[in-house]
Amino acid sequence: MKFGAIDAGGKRFICGITDENGNTLEKTSFLTETPDKTIPLVLDFFKDKEISALGIGCFGPLDLNPDSETYGFITSSPKKPWRNYNIVGTFKEKLGVPVFLDTNINAGLLGETTWGAAKNVKNAIYLTIGNGIGGAAIVENKLIHGLIHPEMGHIFVNRHPRDKFTGNCPFHGGNCLEGMASGPAIEKRWNLPLEKLSSDHPAWHLEAYYIAHAIVNYILVLSPEKIILGGDVMKYKQLFPIIRKSVINLLNGYLQNKFIFNDIENYIVAPDLGENSGFFGAATLCIKNFKQK
Amino acid sequence: MKFGAIDAGGKRFICGITDENGNTLEKTSFLTETPDKTIPLVLDFFKDKEISALGIGCFGPLDLNPDSETYGFITSSPKKPWRNYNIVGTFKEKLGVPVFLDTNINAGLLGETTWGAAKNVKNAIYLTIGNGIGGAAIVENKLIHGLIHPEMGHIFVNRHPRDKFTGNCPFHGGNCLEGMASGPAIEKRWNLPLEKLSSDHPAWHLEAYYIAHAIVNYILVLSPEKIILGGDVMKYKQLFPIIRKSVINLLNGYLQNKFIFNDIENYIVAPDLGENSGFFGAATLCIKNFKQK
Repeated sequence: MKFGAIDAGGKRFICGITDENGNTLEKTSFLTETPDKTIPLVLDFFKDKEISALGIGCFGPLDLNPDSETYGFITSSPKKPWRNYNIVGTFKEKLGVPVFLDTNINAGLLGETTWGAAKNVKNAIYLTIGNGIGGAAIVENKLIHGLIHPEMGHIFVNRHPRDKFTGNCPFHGGNCLEGMASGPAIEKRWNLPLEKLSSDHPAWHLEAYYIAHAIVNYILVLSPEKIILGGDVMKYKQLFPIIRKSVINLLNGYLQNKFIFNDIENYIVAPDLGENSGFFGAATLCIKNFKQK
Repeated sequence: MKFGAIDAGGKRFICGITDENGNTLEKTSFLTETPDKTIPLVLDFFKDKEISALGIGCFGPLDLNPDSETYGFITSSPKKPWRNYNIVGTFKEKLGVPVFLDTNINAGLLGETTWGAAKNVKNAIYLTIGNGIGGAAIVENKLIHGLIHPEMGHIFVNRHPRDKFTGNCPFHGGNCLEGMASGPAIEKRWNLPLEKLSSDHPAWHLEAYYIAHAIVNYILVLSPEKIILGGDVMKYKQLFPIIRKSVINLLNGYLQNKFIFNDIENYIVAPDLGENSGFFGAATLCIKNFKQK
């Protein structure tokens, strides 16, 4: 039996086929452009693959309420061509198989809790900092969905007093984390692509400032046992020690806990599955839901 | 069978006796001063009451890890005389009954989910704004505890551009919500007690500014179906409409959801149990845990 999985991110649609144990049989990717350009390529990849079901982890916000008329739609995404796009409906109709959807970031955490860095943990956060910023959390082993689903990347952040960048979130300008700290925000602020920023460039300290502030807020709200930081921006590993130190400084002695204060290297970590968390999570979502059906 | 319950808040210890269905048989309160002054009065109230167990909802941070050497202690509280106070140990030893502890704010939400405003809801937030600011949340019907427990009142807030108040959180000064928006913070900023501030005083708009920013952050992280705002500050009901309007403005069209945008009067609400949420929650905590033992 074969299953399809898509990790639909801001830059790429990673598409693949797995067996029923989640072993990857085939994998490819397509650039995230407009639905008109990207979706036909994705459909073409899956047709004739004889998959029994498809799991999709997609950038949000999404309508995940099964009772809603717009269930399975991308809703108010900053990516305008994708707003109000019926992603579940399209794949269901064109491929004729059950389609299971969650946010790409929820899928990423599902991957990490099943096979990766959060394997034995009941309360964890997974944050990806890339083209956008997304966050997922499990509380007592359950992914938070709630009324809609978390959109952690859009929380307010305190502007650094010397940072004059106006921000680039179409909804919240420079008021939210994504507007100030996504990959494109960094590139726009410094007018350089990420790979041209030297490892001691002040960009990284400023980036760590915003990420650390957000992490402290997430800790104070969710009290996680593990924080996983992934995404293209976090490939610049120099960020990790600066973020860890800054989180400890910002907590300023509040929340006495040896896991945070004595073992922060194992508290704030990179994803074990690297770039594959979302893809493995989409496969898990698909296989788990198909078996429960 | 009789049970004891304590809602230990920043201003008062509300102490009472209930039957096994949670009906109150007797209730009183004592000022929260130092442990040396307050605890003997509380012990005196409970002795000879023949209670089978005691439930305590207490201000935090608390050590709630049963495996910890300091389980049942108040840890890094801004209330200095209470730091490192063994509240569970004291009552267990002096009253000789099982003692069940959670944060007073978790107890408050437990009260509201059992009998009050969050009765039929799986994902909710309860925030009290009083002497301090505390927050609790349920995710899929489970109270968040995680590594420690939430301390939502201490999240970072953006200072209002015209607000010069330096804040009064001993840990985070004017950087956190409690430092800028607790009852004492309002009184210190305007140099007036709350009851002397007229209902159209600018204090309330500024207060709503901070609370609304925090609520938007909580929504983006937890995606709740209901937000309950309690505590002494929220008794000034003029805050509710300003907060609701501000939350909608701050979301700025992000997170399309009819419950938030069309029915905010039923989305951001006062506690149904008023000042009694914490006491009823402490009783629930006690009765539920005693029966499970």
